Amino acid sequence: MTPIEHVGEFGLIDRITKNFESYHANVQLGIGDDAAIVKTGSNTVELISTDLLLEGVHFDLAYAPIQHVGFKSIAVNVSDIVAMNAQPYGVTVSIGVSNRFTVEAIEELYAGIQAACDAYQIDLLGGDTSSSRQGLVISVTAFGTAQESEVVRRKGAQVKNLVCVSGDLGSAYAGFLILDREKSVFLKNPQLQPDLNDFDYVVGRQLRPRARLDLIQRLAALNVKPTSMIDVSDGLANEIHHLCKHSNCGARLFANKLPLDFQTMKVGEEFQISPVTFALHGGEDYELLFTIPIEDFDKIKTEADISVIGHITEDPQVIQMVLDSGELTDIHPQGWNHFQQSESE
Amino acid sequence: MTPIEHVGEFGLIDRITKNFESYHANVQLGIGDDAAIVKTGSNTVELISTDLLLEGVHFDLAYAPIQHVGFKSIAVNVSDIVAMNAQPYGVTVSIGVSNRFTVEAIEELYAGIQAACDAYQIDLLGGDTSSSRQGLVISVTAFGTAQESEVVRRKGAQVKNLVCVSGDLGSAYAGFLILDREKSVFLKNPQLQPDLNDFDYVVGRQLRPRARLDLIQRLAALNVKPTSMIDVSDGLANEIHHLCKHSNCGARLFANKLPLDFQTMKVGEEFQISPVTFALHGGEDYELLFTIPIEDFDKIKTEADISVIGHITEDPQVIQMVLDSGELTDIHPQGWNHFQQSESE
Repeated sequence: MTPIEHVGEFGLIDRITKNFESYHANVQLGIGDDAAIVKTGSNTVELISTDLLLEGVHFDLAYAPIQHVGFKSIAVNVSDIVAMNAQPYGVTVSIGVSNRFTVEAIEELYAGIQAACDAYQIDLLGGDTSSSRQGLVISVTAFGTAQESEVVRRKGAQVKNLVCVSGDLGSAYAGFLILDREKSVFLKNPQLQPDLNDFDYVVGRQLRPRARLDLIQRLAALNVKPTSMIDVSDGLANEIHHLCKHSNCGARLFANKLPLDFQTMKVGEEFQISPVTFALHGGEDYELLFTIPIEDFDKIKTEADISVIGHITEDPQVIQMVLDSGELTDIHPQGWNHFQQSESE
Repeated sequence: MTPIEHVGEFGLIDRITKNFESYHANVQLGIGDDAAIVKTGSNTVELISTDLLLEGVHFDLAYAPIQHVGFKSIAVNVSDIVAMNAQPYGVTVSIGVSNRFTVEAIEELYAGIQAACDAYQIDLLGGDTSSSRQGLVISVTAFGTAQESEVVRRKGAQVKNLVCVSGDLGSAYAGFLILDREKSVFLKNPQLQPDLNDFDYVVGRQLRPRARLDLIQRLAALNVKPTSMIDVSDGLANEIHHLCKHSNCGARLFANKLPLDFQTMKVGEEFQISPVTFALHGGEDYELLFTIPIEDFDKIKTEADISVIGHITEDPQVIQMVLDSGELTDIHPQGWNHFQQSESE
């Protein structure tokens, strides 16, 4: 008998999905990217992505307002559709709720879900509602459409392509650290009110991340089509590895090019952790990591909110970072292994 | 603060979904049928349905082999696609598992999922794998396609249409009663092996239900297109109410026409419950309840596995059953209210 933490999430997925048959030629890509690709017309495809969010694993209602949990559950799924360079159009939402939730709490959850549907102009297509013995369970499936020729996958990065990232990295994890600290303070002394004013930005990044639909629309307007793309849900280190694995290449990134917010750096200082570590391993930023041909550099170089952080190299899976000192270091994949997490708790 | 059991599952769904906007004209039907309908071409639509299955609420691993749980999780979703008269082509499957599950247990779960995918010739499109603090969580979304003109909804039943049902009713609940009894015996004396031989059929109906894809294919071959259809997941009483509500009509059913298996009747005798009650309120049969024009009666009258159980009447929501005595009685909707269930447990 093998404990799941011995094989990890990706090992488990490999083992359980390896024997499945493919019956339908219109299914172009099942498992193995941000979203599945299903052909629906001569040049149109549908994109499908799904995520399961469990109380106590993915969110903690001790500090996350339930409305934000609703918003986030939609945003993280829309992010997967956007990472395929597709236009999201709908979601299904299933929830399991235990007796401790009131109708009003669930209405608040759906107010957040609705706010996200309005923000991304997507339809609620359906869902399932059930009781749960323990805690809140949220399962979201998101749907998008694209011209087949416009879809961007994890594979496709070419040697000398520039590696780009939107927004900033590590701030969602910095926000998590602040919230977790305030929770401990609150548990010790419930009279104390949390003081989050200095960290409003990073806390917002943790509680209410956004999907970068605006960015793919901007890239389209600039006439830039990424050669590969993935959303940064599990930290830059993991995502660049996914991208290089699928594209059969390596990458060299530059530590001093990583976009870090001022508040993220301040949290790093307080906790005595390098904010580069937040960016590499923190996760939940939901920014887009993508590669573009070097010829397109002029089109994006003055764009706010897009940082060139490195370039693609030839040796497969050799992924390195140039530190401020000029030293080269390997970037190892190491994100959140939920199975290990729950083992140690 | 309103406890959820005060409004029930359907009341809750009404409250939380009433304010959502519709942004996309290609979404023809969101919430309110077995599956959502999304237009994908000039005469093609995609059907989407989703279900959440939670350990301790929807299945009990004390008596349900985990492989069957996997099979059932797919079958019940495929059933929703089939109930729209559509061809299923794929599923996404997300799971949350706690530490007590081994890799081998999850492989067994997926062996069941794979068996169902093979049985219905559908693709596994993707999913999400996460740890769970307690118990097994399974979320499945199923996808199908159809010609727009072939889709059958809950609405569409016409006065004098015949009400038909596939297979037999109440057997899944009879199987549940047997399994539940054996579980109690086993808990008292773990040495005793359960004796399920006399009830193999009903136990199989509970543990490993099938979706009636074969039936919609047979109806198509007979050139019969139902005017309305729904799958029987929550008991005949609830489903005929859904159908009549959406079709703005009533129905008259005949108790002596309800298809009941011999084993179901035997269980009814042992537990001193009328097997008609199993059929009306038991649920989980996953047969198809549908209406056809009376002119099509000749096409189906000699078909095995299809029973005409009544006809559609004019008065909206007046749904009655003619008992063996000739007496008329109202059929009240009353299925599984999971929220009430968990309240009392």
